[in-house]
Amino acid sequence: MPSIVSPAHAVFGQTVRTNRTDRGWSQQGLADRAGLHRNYVGAVELGRRNVSLRNMLALARALDMPLAELVREVDADS
Amino acid sequence: MPSIVSPAHAVFGQTVRTNRTDRGWSQQGLADRAGLHRNYVGAVELGRRNVSLRNMLALARALDMPLAELVREVDADS
Repeated sequence: MPSIVSPAHAVFGQTVRTNRTDRGWSQQGLADRAGLHRNYVGAVELGRRNVSLRNMLALARALDMPLAELVREVDADS
Repeated sequence: MPSIVSPAHAVFGQTVRTNRTDRGWSQQGLADRAGLHRNYVGAVELGRRNVSLRNMLALARALDMPLAELVREVDADS
């Protein structure tokens, strides 16, 4: 299995996962809402993909959150 | 010249530019601090690159800002 891109990516992914599960959604449910593939969402949640701004926005939009809130826990120093 | 990736990308790029010029830095100065190429920074500032989380973090770190602050103006709906 590929390792995480960076600790910051893992934190971002964990925030996505927490917000997804808070809504009672499966990875497929979030993926459908965001227009992404379930496998891609799973990899992002594990910090294994260097997610782009476009896909970060798609996830934020699907979760109905401001992007700033979705990256609030991401420490630029990690 | 390529067009912008999305209005949100243009807003992100403008925020990078504003913070860079507030510090009195050239694109080269920011690029050097972030470990990126000057041409790439210029394209990001114009919203023409689908910047990755890794490079967003490099820019935030170089500007000594939390990533959340750097994306505060980015509206997930745009």
